[in-house]
Amino acid sequence: MIDIQNQADTRDVPLQKVGVKGLRYPVQVLDKTFKTQQTSGVVDLFVNLPRHFKGTHMSRFIEIFHKYHKNVSMKQFLAMLDEIRRRLDAECAFGTLAFPFFMEKQAPVSRQPGMMSYECTYEGIVSAESSRFYVSVAVPVATLCPCSKAISTRGAHNQRGIVRVTLQSTVFFWIEDIIAVVEQAASAGLYSVLKRSDEKFVTEQAYDNPRFVEDVVREVYIALRNFRCGGDAVRHEAGKSAEISGDTFSVPATGAGVPFRWFSVEAENFESIHNHNAYAYTEYSGQE
Amino acid sequence: MIDIQNQADTRDVPLQKVGVKGLRYPVQVLDKTFKTQQTSGVVDLFVNLPRHFKGTHMSRFIEIFHKYHKNVSMKQFLAMLDEIRRRLDAECAFGTLAFPFFMEKQAPVSRQPGMMSYECTYEGIVSAESSRFYVSVAVPVATLCPCSKAISTRGAHNQRGIVRVTLQSTVFFWIEDIIAVVEQAASAGLYSVLKRSDEKFVTEQAYDNPRFVEDVVREVYIALRNFRCGGDAVRHEAGKSAEISGDTFSVPATGAGVPFRWFSVEAENFESIHNHNAYAYTEYSGQE
Amino acid sequence: MIDIQNQADTRDVPLQKVGVKGLRYPVQVLDKTFKTQQTSGVVDLFVNLPRHFKGTHMSRFIEIFHKYHKNVSMKQFLAMLDEIRRRLDAECAFGTLAFPFFMEKQAPVSRQPGMMSYECTYEGIVSAESSRFYVSVAVPVATLCPCSKAISTRGAHNQRGIVRVTLQSTVFFWIEDIIAVVEQAASAGLYSVLKRSDEKFVTEQAYDNPRFVEDVVREVYIALRNFRCGGDAVRHEAGKSAEISGDTFSVPATGAGVPFRWFSVEAENFESIHNHNAYAYTEYSGQE
Amino acid sequence: MIDIQNQADTRDVPLQKVGVKGLRYPVQVLDKTFKTQQTSGVVDLFVNLPRHFKGTHMSRFIEIFHKYHKNVSMKQFLAMLDEIRRRLDAECAFGTLAFPFFMEKQAPVSRQPGMMSYECTYEGIVSAESSRFYVSVAVPVATLCPCSKAISTRGAHNQRGIVRVTLQSTVFFWIEDIIAVVEQAASAGLYSVLKRSDEKFVTEQAYDNPRFVEDVVREVYIALRNFRCGGDAVRHEAGKSAEISGDTFSVPATGAGVPFRWFSVEAENFESIHNHNAYAYTEYSGQE
Repeated sequence: MIDIQNQADTRDVPLQKVGVKGLRYPVQVLDKTFKTQQTSGVVDLFVNLPRHFKGTHMSRFIEIFHKYHKNVSMKQFLAMLDEIRRRLDAECAFGTLAFPFFMEKQAPVSRQPGMMSYECTYEGIVSAESSRFYVSVAVPVATLCPCSKAISTRGAHNQRGIVRVTLQSTVFFWIEDIIAVVEQAASAGLYSVLKRSDEKFVTEQAYDNPRFVEDVVREVYIALRNFRCGGDAVRHEAGKSAEISGDTFSVPATGAGVPFRWFSVEAENFESIHNHNAYAYTEYSGQE
Repeated sequence: MIDIQNQADTRDVPLQKVGVKGLRYPVQVLDKTFKTQQTSGVVDLFVNLPRHFKGTHMSRFIEIFHKYHKNVSMKQFLAMLDEIRRRLDAECAFGTLAFPFFMEKQAPVSRQPGMMSYECTYEGIVSAESSRFYVSVAVPVATLCPCSKAISTRGAHNQRGIVRVTLQSTVFFWIEDIIAVVEQAASAGLYSVLKRSDEKFVTEQAYDNPRFVEDVVREVYIALRNFRCGGDAVRHEAGKSAEISGDTFSVPATGAGVPFRWFSVEAENFESIHNHNAYAYTEYSGQE
Repeated sequence: MIDIQNQADTRDVPLQKVGVKGLRYPVQVLDKTFKTQQTSGVVDLFVNLPRHFKGTHMSRFIEIFHKYHKNVSMKQFLAMLDEIRRRLDAECAFGTLAFPFFMEKQAPVSRQPGMMSYECTYEGIVSAESSRFYVSVAVPVATLCPCSKAISTRGAHNQRGIVRVTLQSTVFFWIEDIIAVVEQAASAGLYSVLKRSDEKFVTEQAYDNPRFVEDVVREVYIALRNFRCGGDAVRHEAGKSAEISGDTFSVPATGAGVPFRWFSVEAENFESIHNHNAYAYTEYSGQE
Repeated sequence: MIDIQNQADTRDVPLQKVGVKGLRYPVQVLDKTFKTQQTSGVVDLFVNLPRHFKGTHMSRFIEIFHKYHKNVSMKQFLAMLDEIRRRLDAECAFGTLAFPFFMEKQAPVSRQPGMMSYECTYEGIVSAESSRFYVSVAVPVATLCPCSKAISTRGAHNQRGIVRVTLQSTVFFWIEDIIAVVEQAASAGLYSVLKRSDEKFVTEQAYDNPRFVEDVVREVYIALRNFRCGGDAVRHEAGKSAEISGDTFSVPATGAGVPFRWFSVEAENFESIHNHNAYAYTEYSGQE
């Protein structure tokens, strides 16, 4: 049967990315409490296409992802991309996997448990020489406006906001620890179940901790710059390698430097007094 | 050329609705201040299909809507549906038109102007014997939680919410007047521009007017039951007919009964302390 | 601590629905091949609120759902709603759960496996006297236009479409069997992985089976009216009760009448020649 | 009244972007046929925030945008951003405006008119020294698979796709001309109204012009590299300045080089045989 994709192309236009988008798949990711967690993901997979090829063979992306979907730790995700790159004879493979990450969280006073959901994305870029891996986590929080509190004789407007952190790391870290960093930087964290004693607690906590989107972004930035893997953070011995769900990860020495080569922090508030949102964004790239 | 749609169908299955969805069109609607307003809409149009026809001719829906898109007052919308019904030999035609309705609104203290946007939907159902017309308006508001205020020593959680009102009416009314009814029932209205004096005002206003979603729905319900067209409401003389942008509408006598045969009110709060929403819904159908 | 929600309300407006929307939760549902399947859901839960109560206690919805999320078969879903109804002293409880349902599917010629995802929704309504349960399944398919094929000398436009079936049933059936019914009624089914031999097969299959949205809806309607549970359909002995994942379900006798009290079928085509969609809808309610 | 935003910040974290998102506004843009077009937009506006400021004054973004919304040509959009930059004492201002752009289009044989809608985005970045402006246009098209056609004895799968072009330009061009470039590179263009004679035409046209996403991207890339403003393209005399709706624009000399400093082209197919999409992307940056 004729292989049209494999024919030569004479138009002399290389393509940076060719592939598949919006593939929905059940996926299994790592979980600090239960080792693994089953969730549902949306996958995009690409390779670059040199100028002399007419097309790529899109079925191969899915054949390869299918083999990996039952274990998509960060490490396996890069291995999957590398297999795509080699199988499709490409210089570079790219992929993203977006999924809701679930975590049980207790109310602050009553200790009632409820599940929280955090939108996460893996992004990987793999060539023969190197690879990069990014994780982003979107954490919903409450923010209370410092200006509104300062100028009003009673009350202060507050609202739900989303803080999205994107991290480039070569060492292992838990998504759960990033969520904790973000929640501590907001006026208050969110919960699925809040009894009245809890509602009083978070209302007063938010009133006592007013934060602009600018403040939230700066507080998360500082906390991530000071973030140290090892010890509690990974529940594994610092400076050694750790085996998690069949993979071996290196755990940085306690007190080692910033474990992230690059990160960005953005906060978006669904303002309670406007029908538009307030937004702030910053990046860390090693140099300050 | 063969007309497949027009062939006989022997499967003996009538279809309630056949037509087109998701058509994007520029539309012109009525505006209390400027007479007309140009905005952008998404249109769905259907007819019923008797059991003995194989298919409908979908291009005709668009040909007819195209003629009307420059003037889609409520009255013209029904005329358009009736033309579709007759042209396609159907018993019944159905249509919805969703569009952002824009309105300039001044900040409460500084009087700074800014535009607000309200998602509106027209829905019409037309047969040879009768027609029904519904307008729905989604009004974003601020709500402050009465429970949080009562149990906390300081502050109270508040958030943006959306109140959607759907009205069945045979008389003319302005969308602007429905928006005003909803904003008065919430803890506070929303604004595009708020200077500090305004922010103080709405913060304190919301704190002084705590409302559950349940309260907002009930307050809007009562206000709509007491709503009277005529006089200010339409800026036309009550009990007479009015010409608006080329169409003639009947204006009810001042003090006439509830102008809506049926209405529903729903409120959804983007809770600032949860990552899910609080919701309340009720209907009015003439009898209580 | 004061209980504001529990206070008397004198406004005399009963609310049809009060509750929570947009709660994201990991859920476990039944699976014909693997007994259970772990996926992620979005949950809405409501009760009616009599006129004399000021508000409902929203945390209780989540406390109760939390207990059930690890097993939300259709039967457990209704039990969960009944517990909400009783705990909140309501006449009626309502709930929906939307989730992607995953199923492995083999390519038609090469037999390459890939996962498919189908958006499903449970809907339940429970009062002291009765309960109703609906399942809806959205099945993506390919449709090829009979008119385009008939009038063109070569080719025919075709496209992806979504067929949504909503069923009211009191007997047990598998979502997988409903998916099979829908795929057989379209021009062709969809696949995640298709090698060239498969692509040739589905291209020719679609060309040989042209279907309007009207045709797809009618074919699904007829197949559901003739659908018989029992035997293969549930892999359980007809006329007996079956135990599935710890619950007992009644299996109708082979050849028993239509197992659905009510159903609707809708099809929406993402037309390849238009930027809007073609749509058809019908319902079955026992009487024809 | 205290000005919290204006207070000093000692955390030493500069923010790349601070501002407002999701502001909905009626906007007026340029139109080749009617000079101007009224549509509805969604606006994001940001400035950078130096490390020593606690916050920005978000109301000012909207005050300034409000003044410009009745005329947002590319030129006025940059003037608006520059006013924001100066008013907020920032080094840099950023803004995007997304809007549906409407255009009447006639069916290819019957010449029946219908409106088409194209999602457009303006993006501007303005500092004291320089400014950059990008326009992106998303054009829905039909694509027919060359592989499916080659290997099948009858038919070929085809589908709706979206081609998004993003252009950096310093000279004036019409969005309408970019749309024409994209439609000519696809298997066929899309239409709102198609009578049977038209449907036959586009079905056969698509069958005669099979295109992978890779092909569409390459054809658009080549056409944009060869794109020449002047003459017909702008309906203004080449090499002179032109006045359009009150603004003066420079029109490049006929035959001048590529008018775009940078552009990207991406194509995404809503595959009719899969439930995921095929995708291709490339960029032009002056050097090849």
